[in-house]
Amino acid sequence: MLRLLAGGERRLGLSDVASALGLAKGTAHGILRTLQQEGFVEQDPASGRYQLGAELLRLGNSYLDVHELRARALVWADDLARSSGESVYLGVLHQQGVLIVHHVFRPDDSRQVLEVGAMQPLHSTALGKVLCAYDPVAHAEVADAEREAFTPRTVTALPELESVLDLTRARGWAADVEETWAGLASIAAPIHDRRRMPVGAVGITGAVERVCEDGELRARLVAAVRDCARAVSRDLGAGRF
Amino acid sequence: MLRLLAGGERRLGLSDVASALGLAKGTAHGILRTLQQEGFVEQDPASGRYQLGAELLRLGNSYLDVHELRARALVWADDLARSSGESVYLGVLHQQGVLIVHHVFRPDDSRQVLEVGAMQPLHSTALGKVLCAYDPVAHAEVADAEREAFTPRTVTALPELESVLDLTRARGWAADVEETWAGLASIAAPIHDRRRMPVGAVGITGAVERVCEDGELRARLVAAVRDCARAVSRDLGAGRF
Repeated sequence: MLRLLAGGERRLGLSDVASALGLAKGTAHGILRTLQQEGFVEQDPASGRYQLGAELLRLGNSYLDVHELRARALVWADDLARSSGESVYLGVLHQQGVLIVHHVFRPDDSRQVLEVGAMQPLHSTALGKVLCAYDPVAHAEVADAEREAFTPRTVTALPELESVLDLTRARGWAADVEETWAGLASIAAPIHDRRRMPVGAVGITGAVERVCEDGELRARLVAAVRDCARAVSRDLGAGRF
Repeated sequence: MLRLLAGGERRLGLSDVASALGLAKGTAHGILRTLQQEGFVEQDPASGRYQLGAELLRLGNSYLDVHELRARALVWADDLARSSGESVYLGVLHQQGVLIVHHVFRPDDSRQVLEVGAMQPLHSTALGKVLCAYDPVAHAEVADAEREAFTPRTVTALPELESVLDLTRARGWAADVEETWAGLASIAAPIHDRRRMPVGAVGITGAVERVCEDGELRARLVAAVRDCARAVSRDLGAGRF
């Protein structure tokens, strides 16, 4: 029920909820009332429609507080934003995508929207490709998923994507040049923990004109992203070799 | 169970969860496993302890996306941060406190921690006092609550707090001068919707040396906060009179 309210319409009447979930109206109403009492669901007084409640925001914030990867990455992500001049994202695998758990704004005065809690696709973003290249669970998800073509440059065929992931493992980083959003390019690298398991990815995103030069990703930016990923990995206890 | 994992220890073993909630271990394990399957709970592979899961962050973000007050306030909050030079918070009543639904960083290069999803006390903060002064539900909550003295300046006795709330209604804004955090002062004003209901509060927080002058709140900052609250209220459909 919470997932239903989180997707698509987001404000639903009792009949919509009941029919979408195949429940009797009375049953759906009972569950909605319990969720409402606990703050997980709110009812708009004017329309009577239901939407997600504030308690989810509070619990989501508590999730971030206890997130070890995020805590270790905060300072390094700030440094990467400063050295690269671009916005920095930290992502982890969640369900069939990349969940953004930290976002540092590009260090200029422009108006930017915080994307913590947002999802990015696995097959087309730099963060997603890194996760697919190093995490077998992410790889299984992307192989099974429907891979949408967001732009003419999105790689959707599985054999082609596998080559991209092979290249990612060989180089130790991944890129997304206008494969998800027209005009934007990203670079990302994997973060490993003390058991050498891939636990997330960190990367930068910016205008393709700044991130690329003569059709290539700028080596200075690739180095900065990989430095950051290595620093966070070391902070998590991963060995240097 | 989610609330238990959100507070205090935050990483709990099966026995801790079962005993804290007065459940049989088998029952607690069944619920934890269901929550884990849905992504609401994660289990640390090394210690076997449970913590909140990533799905809560995703749903919390969906809550923000559909939040009309927040959507309308984004631009005005940015303008207030720029004109005041201080950080801006937008808060709504949630349970026994103020839930921060939007936070604009102070426009300088200092390192700041995003507080969206965090809770602030009702009785001692400027945002909380505004909600208590205008929203009968918030007023009932603060009257019933245990009012902690965070600093020597916190007002905890109910008759004194009622005078503060009377003053807040008379002036149309509230302040917090080192009543919650030593060294920090805040100013906040109420936001009303088209039905003239108090739906939230917006305010600034900064070093007491900047926000106050000769022991008084700076009139220029009070005016900026009230301008912002009025602008958001008008955007929500509240009449001018």
